[in-house]
Amino acid sequence: MRIESIDFFYLSMPKVTAEADGSQDALVVRVAAGGLVGYGECEAAPLPSIAALICPLSHGSCQPVKDSVLGQKLNTREDIQRISQLVAYQSMDLLQAAHTYSGIEMALWDLLGKSLNEPVWTLLGYKNSYPKTPYFSVLFGDEPAITLERAKESRQKGFQAAKFGWGPIGTGTASEDREHFQAAREGLENDGILLVDTGQIFGDDVEKASQRIKAMEEANVLWFEEPFHAHALKEYGELAKRSRKIKIAGGEGAHHSSMAKHLIDFGKIGYVQIDCGRIGGISPAKLVADHAVASGVTYVNHTFTSHLALSASLQPYAGLKNHEICEYPGQPKSLALAITKTHLEPDKNRQVRAPEKPGLGIDINLEGLTNYMVDVSIEVNGRSLYRTPQL
Amino acid sequence: MRIESIDFFYLSMPKVTAEADGSQDALVVRVAAGGLVGYGECEAAPLPSIAALICPLSHGSCQPVKDSVLGQKLNTREDIQRISQLVAYQSMDLLQAAHTYSGIEMALWDLLGKSLNEPVWTLLGYKNSYPKTPYFSVLFGDEPAITLERAKESRQKGFQAAKFGWGPIGTGTASEDREHFQAAREGLENDGILLVDTGQIFGDDVEKASQRIKAMEEANVLWFEEPFHAHALKEYGELAKRSRKIKIAGGEGAHHSSMAKHLIDFGKIGYVQIDCGRIGGISPAKLVADHAVASGVTYVNHTFTSHLALSASLQPYAGLKNHEICEYPGQPKSLALAITKTHLEPDKNRQVRAPEKPGLGIDINLEGLTNYMVDVSIEVNGRSLYRTPQL
Repeated sequence: MRIESIDFFYLSMPKVTAEADGSQDALVVRVAAGGLVGYGECEAAPLPSIAALICPLSHGSCQPVKDSVLGQKLNTREDIQRISQLVAYQSMDLLQAAHTYSGIEMALWDLLGKSLNEPVWTLLGYKNSYPKTPYFSVLFGDEPAITLERAKESRQKGFQAAKFGWGPIGTGTASEDREHFQAAREGLENDGILLVDTGQIFGDDVEKASQRIKAMEEANVLWFEEPFHAHALKEYGELAKRSRKIKIAGGEGAHHSSMAKHLIDFGKIGYVQIDCGRIGGISPAKLVADHAVASGVTYVNHTFTSHLALSASLQPYAGLKNHEICEYPGQPKSLALAITKTHLEPDKNRQVRAPEKPGLGIDINLEGLTNYMVDVSIEVNGRSLYRTPQL
Repeated sequence: MRIESIDFFYLSMPKVTAEADGSQDALVVRVAAGGLVGYGECEAAPLPSIAALICPLSHGSCQPVKDSVLGQKLNTREDIQRISQLVAYQSMDLLQAAHTYSGIEMALWDLLGKSLNEPVWTLLGYKNSYPKTPYFSVLFGDEPAITLERAKESRQKGFQAAKFGWGPIGTGTASEDREHFQAAREGLENDGILLVDTGQIFGDDVEKASQRIKAMEEANVLWFEEPFHAHALKEYGELAKRSRKIKIAGGEGAHHSSMAKHLIDFGKIGYVQIDCGRIGGISPAKLVADHAVASGVTYVNHTFTSHLALSASLQPYAGLKNHEICEYPGQPKSLALAITKTHLEPDKNRQVRAPEKPGLGIDINLEGLTNYMVDVSIEVNGRSLYRTPQL
């Protein structure tokens, strides 16, 4: 089959705030080929990603993403590799291209799986889709009492593991942060798995990040996530050296498989967290999973949005039995749930897994999309380059 | 002063082709504060960069770039650092932000210099702006005969050094490439400095890149530039190990100072090439220059466009006497020359230097901009978010 069309749908909640919740908007991708459609989702700023899809040519290595995808042959996984390489080369100077292409690449896998009647994880070479233990992913409260409430709620909902992120952590003193870690531990009880995500708040300040380690140890935190910005390889490595009990986690900011591999090799992280909606799709995430296995590092998905994104993000490590933690959007905004008819609900053991159905195994809820659709129009020199497409 | 406005002007040649020439379009930035204006230039895809400036908020760490800049105080260099950190933190999930902000950051330095009546390099802590030896930067010909012609032309124009880039190199055999290297050497004569830029053509294939080393040695090439993609730290390091006589050069793809530092530390490059229009502006480039000095690596600017970009890119290493090679746009498109009234012409010794005048020391040619202006309109839910501003 040949790739006939790429449609980008920008969805948004009626009101978007500056809270850390990334499920307030979405960019859903539909690709058509051979009478089939595949879907994907960019975990990215919608408008700049749309612009990177359709912008005018700047020069040979700054081409709009669509020019490397439309009309291409798609029959095998090698075709996806070839298209990915073409995008990387022809858009090397277009920074947003990796985020833009991520959703397209997912859709290509979805299409290929549907056309071959295989789930994506089979096409990636896995024999099984193993169950994963989802952790409940929420934000720290503004006060420890709210953090405590959220921890209790995650247990009430049946989650054994919970991740607390962002909020006031790192903005005040280490002892203020300690109160939040203690509150989360109290709410999760002694046997709950506690994960902490500090959302790059320490920039590249190893000292400040190190000051939180002791309180994390006291609260029996499993991992200390994203202390620094995505390029701070040396700072990651230094913190890992100082933090023997607590493992460092990171990788969601990777927009190339090498970035995540370097976090493993030079940053000495213990958990590598990949968002298929940013790293360039499912194939580069699989490369990272392979490297994690070879390096004794645990692979984890990064997903804070829809169950379409969740299925895509489970594929690269579906067959890795021992890599069993999985990020599961705990309190997404309504739009994230509205995107799909299929929801990957935890089974009776409270575990989730990548679907057995062909492609990504997710049915899209077209009516759901309609309710959140953002109408975009981009004109250049009087010519319309983009208008929100018909569903 | 407070930052009152940010205007982005998208310029383009009437016809843009897929050749490697990055001067076919431009994105000029004007920032106003305290009755002054400063100018900068993003070396980036214009439309996605505009979108990253003005897009709707996605969430707390995916904010449009303008929200971290407009209204900010600007009186000292620390203010620029503070604004840069705010952009990095509040737009951490907006990949295009680094390219978008690069031109703004230059304009902030230009503004600050004008307001303090100092050239930017003084504000960066340098006492002198040393002369640099420009190399003539051109593309390889389709045939060795054309490469030969271009090499002769560079000598006729009085350049002692010339860089040949892209074209057919790496797309055929190593012996075909050898003919081009020989042709370039012949045209430059024995005492000319020959630089080779392969524009990421080898992806991450160390073997294929290594096959070109012998022919480069024969042609007495000084550096082998950008063999691999911007994140291929290990491949850079491996090639450097295999290439003892020829130094490896790279860094133009860096969109964060750490990326360039890692190319030095892990990629073992001998020349680090920074484009201030991509790396986040002049300050992160200065960090790289400091690290280059400390590491015994030579800093070089990357500039293929206007003399506004050229002045900006000279500032971070203006005071480094021994880092004297400088990329100089050899055959830019007419729009790149039309952007400025000031052109940094080589002096009687055929050398150029960062201007002594306040700020970036470049007068913008408003009429010149008019001739190439692209009219852009972006509407979201019926609201106009961007229209090409008045000059």
